[in-house]
Amino acid sequence: MSETDELLANNRAHAASHGRIELPTQPARRTAVVACMDSRLDVFAALGLGNGEVHVIRNAGGVVTDDVIRSLAISQRLLGTREIVLVHHTDCGMQKITDEGFAAAVEADAGVRPPWPVESFVDVDVAVRRAIARILASPFIPSKESVRGFVYDVATGVLREVS
Amino acid sequence: MSETDELLANNRAHAASHGRIELPTQPARRTAVVACMDSRLDVFAALGLGNGEVHVIRNAGGVVTDDVIRSLAISQRLLGTREIVLVHHTDCGMQKITDEGFAAAVEADAGVRPPWPVESFVDVDVAVRRAIARILASPFIPSKESVRGFVYDVATGVLREVS
Repeated sequence: MSETDELLANNRAHAASHGRIELPTQPARRTAVVACMDSRLDVFAALGLGNGEVHVIRNAGGVVTDDVIRSLAISQRLLGTREIVLVHHTDCGMQKITDEGFAAAVEADAGVRPPWPVESFVDVDVAVRRAIARILASPFIPSKESVRGFVYDVATGVLREVS
Repeated sequence: MSETDELLANNRAHAASHGRIELPTQPARRTAVVACMDSRLDVFAALGLGNGEVHVIRNAGGVVTDDVIRSLAISQRLLGTREIVLVHHTDCGMQKITDEGFAAAVEADAGVRPPWPVESFVDVDVAVRRAIARILASPFIPSKESVRGFVYDVATGVLREVS
């Protein structure tokens, strides 16, 4: 049985106790969370989220790339969110590589240089500040009143704000 | 009290019952999930995930953009994942806009045309097949043995596979 098949079996149990729930497409808390893809970060649990409350955008590093700007623009303009919460975390894989090293390894295997920046980082606090700065600098995000960044400790579950 | 402050208060309750958990950076199920940012899709609950099991990549639509390819390349090459699960869903905001209409509205407000494709879609099954096709066509994803796509019903919690 593949992992995917096991997740499907888990979903059958989830659906059996789900019932019928009608919620609007607009998130009730009018908030978007941008977080790393890390497997130890359950965003709903870590932030105590209920069904239908916030958008959750995630990628390698929780980096604010053009695709995150796209998602935030859609989140705010189309679906009415206003606050942005950025979540990086301790022990991130993106701190264990360099852009040049990763791109060279990909090119050696694939025969093609990746067209995207790898977006590795050394200091997680610096990375959070950079993520905030990219949002503040973007002309495509209408609401910038609340853009705050945090580091989630994957060992303790504690969220620490980066100032 | 802002929504962000409320989420921080929720996190304090989460951390208080978290204890100390040491897990590796590599996801135990060696699987990456790519899903839409929709607020009604709790990926951990919907797939019955435990802490440290899978990477979770999310954006507007669950679309396979260059940034998703970047995240999947890092997930597979650096952190050992092998299977890919794509999750779109019913009642998606991306079905309620057109690329041209959204880009024109952004340009009218921001004075600048967005440099990214909006990635709206009409038929969710077509969108899932397109997402699978983009992964299969990418030279940057080493493991393509299991790339499967699903539509999550936000009303019932049921995951349906797209063939």
